[in-house]
Amino acid sequence: MTSSTGPIRAVLAVDLGGTKVEAVLVDHRGNLLPGSRNRSPTGPTATSEELARSVTSAVTLALAGLPAGATLVGVGIGSAGPITVASGSVSPLNLPAWREFPLRDLVLGLVPDVPVRLRLDGLCITLAEHWLGAGQGVGNLMGMVVSTGVGGGLILDGRTVSGPTGNAGHIGHVEVGGFDDPCACGGRGCLEAIASGPRTVAWARAQGWSGRTGEHLAAAYAAGDEIAERAVRRSGGAIGQAIASATNLVDLDLVAIGGGFSHVAPELFDAIREAIAERTEFAFATKVRVVHSALTADGPLIGAAALIHRAELVP
Amino acid sequence: MTSSTGPIRAVLAVDLGGTKVEAVLVDHRGNLLPGSRNRSPTGPTATSEELARSVTSAVTLALAGLPAGATLVGVGIGSAGPITVASGSVSPLNLPAWREFPLRDLVLGLVPDVPVRLRLDGLCITLAEHWLGAGQGVGNLMGMVVSTGVGGGLILDGRTVSGPTGNAGHIGHVEVGGFDDPCACGGRGCLEAIASGPRTVAWARAQGWSGRTGEHLAAAYAAGDEIAERAVRRSGGAIGQAIASATNLVDLDLVAIGGGFSHVAPELFDAIREAIAERTEFAFATKVRVVHSALTADGPLIGAAALIHRAELVP
Repeated sequence: MTSSTGPIRAVLAVDLGGTKVEAVLVDHRGNLLPGSRNRSPTGPTATSEELARSVTSAVTLALAGLPAGATLVGVGIGSAGPITVASGSVSPLNLPAWREFPLRDLVLGLVPDVPVRLRLDGLCITLAEHWLGAGQGVGNLMGMVVSTGVGGGLILDGRTVSGPTGNAGHIGHVEVGGFDDPCACGGRGCLEAIASGPRTVAWARAQGWSGRTGEHLAAAYAAGDEIAERAVRRSGGAIGQAIASATNLVDLDLVAIGGGFSHVAPELFDAIREAIAERTEFAFATKVRVVHSALTADGPLIGAAALIHRAELVP
Repeated sequence: MTSSTGPIRAVLAVDLGGTKVEAVLVDHRGNLLPGSRNRSPTGPTATSEELARSVTSAVTLALAGLPAGATLVGVGIGSAGPITVASGSVSPLNLPAWREFPLRDLVLGLVPDVPVRLRLDGLCITLAEHWLGAGQGVGNLMGMVVSTGVGGGLILDGRTVSGPTGNAGHIGHVEVGGFDDPCACGGRGCLEAIASGPRTVAWARAQGWSGRTGEHLAAAYAAGDEIAERAVRRSGGAIGQAIASATNLVDLDLVAIGGGFSHVAPELFDAIREAIAERTEFAFATKVRVVHSALTADGPLIGAAALIHRAELVP
């Protein structure tokens, strides 16, 4: 049954992040249904009640966009981590009001009797990459986002990897040799503490550069600024080292990288690939391909919808 | 059908390592059949023909130990890596005469018409740990060996992870923050380059300690030597950091560590656990339990047999 010959089978996709929550209806081809998209603010200072109201608002308004004759077949939720899959609860680092908050139960109370699945946002973007992006047909894939933070998700042997708690894919908290920058997780030398947009900007400023944002850094790089160039190479080198570690551990075919800071300069990817190429003795490590994400900004929502539409990949 | 009520269903288990190749028959309960065990030397200076003769000798002599009435149901081969599962070939770092050597085909030519499966030795010890060791009933498990090198294997969501080439589990080549020791793989800061027995001994010697082996280091530690103590804590800390990275990436329940150097001092495990506990913000990371392997020295062979006897775990 396809959308051209039968009723639309729609999934309600929800993406919970550190600044906003979004909800939208997505059909079985990954199309967002017009008029169903809604967002509400979240943020580190929001109370638990405010966060719950934002989720309720976004979900209720998106559901109201269900076209006549369409069927809601499930709800997929992608959330910033950490999460606990067994209880359907979330504890996003940047939403301190929610610790072990039962997000799945909240959403279950807002929708008719359909399956509701919760996974890490990084797993969702990896599913989207596999479904409609750069990872189509790839059995062993890591999706990555390099932005304010660094996150990701894994598909191994053709199935998503969640782990017992649902937190597999935290590539931002894989350590990088030669670095010991303190990280918000309590560790040192984590990829996120080195290579995220804000941390790269902070490093460049410590070298004497005067810009303030990733956009400034991109402009400075384009204008030939020497510190900006070193900052981009440093970030890319660390990303490449972490990808090499991940490939040594789980043997990846492909890594697809998106997120705002991944576009800071094309040479970011050169530095990533050069760091991987240094593993000269291990053809299985150097074979991993690193490409730009082929997703639009809708990737997280399409991936949340894939938790239902592509449920066969999600054990 | 059990061994007490029917014919023995035996698997020929082969373990190829840097100093020797061993072969033995293993029944469906993980018992080694008396009289079937054989070994032959390998080593870095052996020619390809010498290595092939050693494998042929060990396999042929082990097969000759098949009891009357017993049935050979398959062959499981564990090999030092890297390997290439699709072609059944091996390129062990410490056996330079073999690069992409078709080991599975060699063994296929020595046995009757039964399945022959090849996997990384680290995956085999992890299977053994899950079958009869410390990982029984654990769905998300990493087996580790800390010895001359550092290796491992993964079981995630109840299935072994091989990766497209078969090299998943190379925890020894996951990087460790704050370290940049050069590694034989071409990288820097790899766990193996920091925490293996020989590398830990080398570090202690660079601090002025005069011993030469891991056994010497264990004795010095037991006698209260201050450098030995720092060396053990350094090794354990690095192992813990790498386990934290691995847990962040694949969300592990349990890590079971064996290998000669894992017994250097009980405090090695304290240092491992303390390094993991620093990930204070991530309950999913600090929850991973780290225990001693419960395998005997037969673990690699039992695990190779599990490639057939526990085939349902090996996609």
